[in-house]
Amino acid sequence: MSTDAAELTARLIRCPSVTPEEGGALILLSDVLTAGGFECHRVDRNGVPNLFARWGAKGAARTFGFNGHTDVVPPGDLGSWTHPPFSGFVADGMIWGRGATDMKSGVAAFTAAVLDFVAATPPDGAIILTITGDEEGPGRDGTRAILDWMDQNGERMDVCIVGEPTNPEVFGEMIKIGRRGSMSLNFVAHGVQGHVAYPHRARNPLHALVRLLDQLTGAPLDQGSEHFDPSGLQITTIDCGNPASNVIPETARAVVNIRFNDLHSPDSLFHDIRAKADLVQAETGVSIEITSNISGESFLTAPGPFVDMVAEVVAEQTNRRPVLSTSGGTSDARFIKNHCPVVEFGLVGRFMHQVDERVPVEEIHALKRVYGGMLEKFFS
Amino acid sequence: MSTDAAELTARLIRCPSVTPEEGGALILLSDVLTAGGFECHRVDRNGVPNLFARWGAKGAARTFGFNGHTDVVPPGDLGSWTHPPFSGFVADGMIWGRGATDMKSGVAAFTAAVLDFVAATPPDGAIILTITGDEEGPGRDGTRAILDWMDQNGERMDVCIVGEPTNPEVFGEMIKIGRRGSMSLNFVAHGVQGHVAYPHRARNPLHALVRLLDQLTGAPLDQGSEHFDPSGLQITTIDCGNPASNVIPETARAVVNIRFNDLHSPDSLFHDIRAKADLVQAETGVSIEITSNISGESFLTAPGPFVDMVAEVVAEQTNRRPVLSTSGGTSDARFIKNHCPVVEFGLVGRFMHQVDERVPVEEIHALKRVYGGMLEKFFS
Repeated sequence: MSTDAAELTARLIRCPSVTPEEGGALILLSDVLTAGGFECHRVDRNGVPNLFARWGAKGAARTFGFNGHTDVVPPGDLGSWTHPPFSGFVADGMIWGRGATDMKSGVAAFTAAVLDFVAATPPDGAIILTITGDEEGPGRDGTRAILDWMDQNGERMDVCIVGEPTNPEVFGEMIKIGRRGSMSLNFVAHGVQGHVAYPHRARNPLHALVRLLDQLTGAPLDQGSEHFDPSGLQITTIDCGNPASNVIPETARAVVNIRFNDLHSPDSLFHDIRAKADLVQAETGVSIEITSNISGESFLTAPGPFVDMVAEVVAEQTNRRPVLSTSGGTSDARFIKNHCPVVEFGLVGRFMHQVDERVPVEEIHALKRVYGGMLEKFFS
Repeated sequence: MSTDAAELTARLIRCPSVTPEEGGALILLSDVLTAGGFECHRVDRNGVPNLFARWGAKGAARTFGFNGHTDVVPPGDLGSWTHPPFSGFVADGMIWGRGATDMKSGVAAFTAAVLDFVAATPPDGAIILTITGDEEGPGRDGTRAILDWMDQNGERMDVCIVGEPTNPEVFGEMIKIGRRGSMSLNFVAHGVQGHVAYPHRARNPLHALVRLLDQLTGAPLDQGSEHFDPSGLQITTIDCGNPASNVIPETARAVVNIRFNDLHSPDSLFHDIRAKADLVQAETGVSIEITSNISGESFLTAPGPFVDMVAEVVAEQTNRRPVLSTSGGTSDARFIKNHCPVVEFGLVGRFMHQVDERVPVEEIHALKRVYGGMLEKFFS
């Protein structure tokens, strides 16, 4: 008997699993998967609910993985929704509700695909699902906790698909094979206060800061690489708060965010910027402190047999040749890449995090067929 | 009988004439000058007390002027003063009190000098004193009001000496023959808000602002001119207030102050900076509003017979060859320059506006001798 991915999506939406609430979503999945022959373990850590599920033998020669999350962002103003956000209401060929695209539909699609696959053609190998209840929050105890538990318990995957929405507008147009990294830099420039009429007795921290920041923004960090867009650097704020137009201030602050590709590391970026700041310090006598905060490093699953296989299945099932992209923000793929090759493919992301989030029923079925195609090709 | 400039200084200090209070200071001067043969007129405007005094005939062929002020800045914490600020206490060869250097001593010195001069050698010409009770405040109804009244009443001066402190450290080292101008510029940059990962959908106002400000501060406005220090431009604040390090802000602000010499006018500076801003606007798509606030234009009393005469007398009386300077902030000379050539010479300014403001008695007598020497040379 086939599992209906759309119906499972609606049932998951009815679980109010706003991060970090389990909301019944992982319990539902655990029940469904156990009934289908999966061995399930809850791998909760620090109050974050997580589910590990395996079909087949531990340590099998060939193991295929899927990753996703059941937690959702808050629904916001309930009165703004056409249909209640935890109703899973079906209308106009769409399922409505928080998580409809991000990403209860993706979880439902791969769950339904693996259940059908192991029932119809039990593979010579294993399938592992890692599903977390904290991808939208801090993410410290979500997918990372499951991967830590897998390491400790000798569980492994050869490859993994993350079921996040990856298509900007049209289903099948894009798979993601990596992500740019993200880091923020905080600058504090310390000068010497003084009167504007006597600048030789003062050192203006704002002059040093604009000189450095104009250097950082004046030229691109790179032109992009084979698989990545150019890295980007944006000043997000500059603040001084000096109310007196005849006074040179003592201190000024700025924050910069960098989205960087595989031509850089946080260390190399910090080193380059520190060197530029050192020159400005030497020129101006203004001291410039810099501290960094790394949100994620860049990574790439290099094109090869696994990426080719994913792209081929997407093309067969959607009649579109997907772009291999590394654009956008961050996802849990940044953790999985340390474990095995990881690629992301899912639905169209346009309603993510919005009021009236919804998903076409037909696309859920289509996504299940894509995931099923991947399993067939991998185990053939 | 000679007028004692030091004693007159002490009497003036005892008048508590914190701007805009008359405090008895102009009444005292009017009495003393009237007794010495001067025709005195109070030229008060909008509550600001002002004194005009002339010896000799109105419209005389040769008329020498002195300008000064009797108002003082507040004394601050009375307990911090060694001697009460309105006591005119004499100790260690110094007269103590608010206004001791800025500039009741200067007013007393030129008042004593003119009284002695007209008594001893009545000149073929006239002497005019313009003394205001608001130089330290807004200055709208002080010296400007006296000059307006003079225009309306056919009163004129050929030249004028402002008795403000002009010497940085040593009496006789500096006369001022002009001042730089001052203006402030307010910048508001309007961009398009967006996510830092998608900068092509946003326009960062901070990038435009640092580009423009680095241009404005990266190169000097000029190298100075024959009589002026280089013009100076200082950024006094930049503010954005964006707390989110993943958001490109919509708006950012900056303030710049310019102290400019005779190579510029407020119009020429605004025009140049507006042109640079236009280029940055065109490059970045960020709109940059600029508004200006002019505190004073630059001016110069060109070296020539009058300046030479003043410098010569200072050199004769102090054995120092004074520097002809245009440094420092602003003074009422910026108004008088529209009426006649004006030069500033007075005491050493080191205690101005400070607690325990005080003046050496001997310097007051020396200043009176310098002013007397100027009168002798002018009318000889």
